[in-house]
Amino acid sequence: MTLKPVVNDPQGLAVTQGLHALGYSEVLESRVGKHIQLTLTASDRQSAASRVEEMCRRLLCNGVIEDFHFQVAEAGT
Amino acid sequence: MTLKPVVNDPQGLAVTQGLHALGYSEVLESRVGKHIQLTLTASDRQSAASRVEEMCRRLLCNGVIEDFHFQVAEAGT
Repeated sequence: MTLKPVVNDPQGLAVTQGLHALGYSEVLESRVGKHIQLTLTASDRQSAASRVEEMCRRLLCNGVIEDFHFQVAEAGT
Repeated sequence: MTLKPVVNDPQGLAVTQGLHALGYSEVLESRVGKHIQLTLTASDRQSAASRVEEMCRRLLCNGVIEDFHFQVAEAGT
């Protein structure tokens, strides 16, 4: 889950300032989002992907201010 | 940034319970971490990777409770 580019990100600003204060002047911008790792059962990757997309739309992602991306991998891989 | 497996994750528990309440009973576990996207200048990928690893160790990641992984990509790709 990442904030949409037009949304202000004070947390990202704090990260950038913190990195600059430590001497990492090469950092131009930081954006802070969420990383959610779901463990779930599904008959195949495609059905897992379609369920996860639905979960993102219905609960995990605030579509007004956030975008989401996800990857499906088999457990243990 | 993800919480180490041994660390309790109440936010992840809330996500799991929320998904179950919506009928996604196939979800076994959720772990909530942070996703930080840094835009920075570097002479090549390798030097970018070594700087980012240093930033993670020094500021971004709390090594006591968190693990980190990162990928380096050229801007626009």
